[in-house]
Amino acid sequence: MSLPALRLKRNEDKRLRNGHLWVFSNEVDTRLTPLKGLPPGTLARVQDAAGKDVGLAFVSPQSLICARLVSRDAHAPIDRDFFQARLARALALRERHFPVPFYRWVYGEGDLLPGLVVDRYGDYLVVQTATWGMENALPLILDALSALVQPRGILLKNNGSARKLEGLPAVLETARDSIPERLAVEENGCRFQVDVLGGQKTGWFYDHRANRARLRDWVAGRRVLDLFSYVGGWGVQAAAFGAREVLCVDSSAPALALVHENARLNQVEARVHTHAGDVFAVLKELAEAPPFDVVILDPPAFIKSRKDMAEGVQAYRRVNQLALKVLAADGMLVSASCSHHLSRDLLLEQVARAAAQQRAPLQLLAEGHQDLDHPIHPGIPESAYIKALFLHRTQE
Amino acid sequence: MSLPALRLKRNEDKRLRNGHLWVFSNEVDTRLTPLKGLPPGTLARVQDAAGKDVGLAFVSPQSLICARLVSRDAHAPIDRDFFQARLARALALRERHFPVPFYRWVYGEGDLLPGLVVDRYGDYLVVQTATWGMENALPLILDALSALVQPRGILLKNNGSARKLEGLPAVLETARDSIPERLAVEENGCRFQVDVLGGQKTGWFYDHRANRARLRDWVAGRRVLDLFSYVGGWGVQAAAFGAREVLCVDSSAPALALVHENARLNQVEARVHTHAGDVFAVLKELAEAPPFDVVILDPPAFIKSRKDMAEGVQAYRRVNQLALKVLAADGMLVSASCSHHLSRDLLLEQVARAAAQQRAPLQLLAEGHQDLDHPIHPGIPESAYIKALFLHRTQE
Repeated sequence: MSLPALRLKRNEDKRLRNGHLWVFSNEVDTRLTPLKGLPPGTLARVQDAAGKDVGLAFVSPQSLICARLVSRDAHAPIDRDFFQARLARALALRERHFPVPFYRWVYGEGDLLPGLVVDRYGDYLVVQTATWGMENALPLILDALSALVQPRGILLKNNGSARKLEGLPAVLETARDSIPERLAVEENGCRFQVDVLGGQKTGWFYDHRANRARLRDWVAGRRVLDLFSYVGGWGVQAAAFGAREVLCVDSSAPALALVHENARLNQVEARVHTHAGDVFAVLKELAEAPPFDVVILDPPAFIKSRKDMAEGVQAYRRVNQLALKVLAADGMLVSASCSHHLSRDLLLEQVARAAAQQRAPLQLLAEGHQDLDHPIHPGIPESAYIKALFLHRTQE
Repeated sequence: MSLPALRLKRNEDKRLRNGHLWVFSNEVDTRLTPLKGLPPGTLARVQDAAGKDVGLAFVSPQSLICARLVSRDAHAPIDRDFFQARLARALALRERHFPVPFYRWVYGEGDLLPGLVVDRYGDYLVVQTATWGMENALPLILDALSALVQPRGILLKNNGSARKLEGLPAVLETARDSIPERLAVEENGCRFQVDVLGGQKTGWFYDHRANRARLRDWVAGRRVLDLFSYVGGWGVQAAAFGAREVLCVDSSAPALALVHENARLNQVEARVHTHAGDVFAVLKELAEAPPFDVVILDPPAFIKSRKDMAEGVQAYRRVNQLALKVLAADGMLVSASCSHHLSRDLLLEQVARAAAQQRAPLQLLAEGHQDLDHPIHPGIPESAYIKALFLHRTQE
């Protein structure tokens, strides 16, 4: 094979040798190996400054992350068998741990397939590609996916914001057969209907599965508030686990309509209520009402990139403070964040300050993370993003 | 009440107002309120630089941490009722969550009782005091403990190293009735005998309960290596959860004798073996033997204080690297640390580097923390110490 080379500057191979998969454009010795001429998605041999092979990478010449390693073997054939082997390993991990076929089958870097996400909804797959390399490899990937599980339909949900960074077009199309308007999900013994076409991300957030399961220990007989509820993943499960009453708050009317549908599916519709509105505004109204025993706070990412840091951190602190205002004595606050840029320590600090300001002493009893179908690559801190803090309100 | 005052320097009340409970000696305005004259354990009113009350604290005039807040109410009576109320709240939390009376009943700062630890072994209690204030309050505390659960015996296991910092004497004595040589523990459905008098800390490490419970998902039918096994907390549970074979390695012969006893108690003695020796040395020998499917690495704290950082971090990296050498393909590494000074990120970095060096790509599937009978005080980062990383060995 005569693949083009990407020569790194001196010492710029170190992060890769320590496990990372990304090459940043300023790390490439562009005098020796210009990025400019390469077509997006080109497979290239990454070499250290001495010309020694580091591995194979898909190149995105115009992106800040200009290459992502797909193999540390510079001679590996990157063909259908290659993808099928990696997809099979990822599948085996999920099949070993989940009793039902509802999970993130491929989590990009965590499954050594940078730029690719595949969510499985039983017989249906939702695929997202975030790099030119994976986009070009899609025919191989789709063939391999089909060979492994014979899906009834595959949706390419490629209309997210991540693709913009790569200069990839926004696309929403079915790649294999058709996808029904609603797909079913089973999670922690509950059933849900999700809208993969119109909903957020691929339609469902598998990443909090294990954290939602923990509600079992906290909600029986209690009044629960589910903030930023989306389609009721937390709230409906809380009701199914025995909560006396659940109020789901979200600004999206279609999401709340699905909350009701999902409550009915699980025979808990009498105990699940919804309130449409901006969570910050609704929390201010609720501060006048009787407090809740359990408050679940799982907001969208307030920090999407570094430049949002200061404002985002403030927002996390403010919303936690408002949440504490509606939390009963001896109650539980579940405070989550899906912002990679907000570390666990920084989130906890916001919660601690909110608690001090509210004079609501808290005990951190448990901490959750993204579930194992979102494996973290130990060499890639960027692959970790979910935090869920389980806090008990005690008293002095 | 006319309690002595501790006046803080300007702005030194900030950390306390944000939730922390500690006052460092250099934060006190000793011109106004000298520490020197105060008897150790004195109850004092902590005041900010303007003379406004912050709360009540026990003073340890000779320690770096010269005072610990016990109440934010400067007029609270710190009497038996005070202790009984806090102990009752701590007990209620444990009773709500644990089906059997084996847990850390009081975790110092996390239960707003800085300097006090109480472990419960059914009808017996093991108490540790680490400050002069709690030492002086012991009669009140013992009365309150007795009133709440009528223990058959209370042991004061005050021979640990923490008391030295306070200038407290090393003491090992029974405060109420007697304590048998062996105490029973139930954990995750398994039974154990522990040696509270001669064993490490209070005899058992409740902090990893939830992490050990996770072994259920990983060990069935597999060969397990339990490093730094102590009395078999991890290893015997692994066998009880269906491991084909377990090897416990520890340098302490008495601990390994208890491993065998505990294996028998759980009817898994045929599958649990021990190997006495230094874990680093044993790992080098084992590298020549068939690899293990699951390796549990729960070492003692390699970093006891900041000055151990560089050396300790190296030791974590080295032991993880040796552990990876004996880990089979598709195997699981459970890499734990109980060093507060080693952050989760720093531990993960050592594991990532070890993995890169061993060319053993890993996926971080789950993360565990100290169990909820060791509640973390959100304002006191020092109250968090346990990390347990559950890593899957994948392949390229």
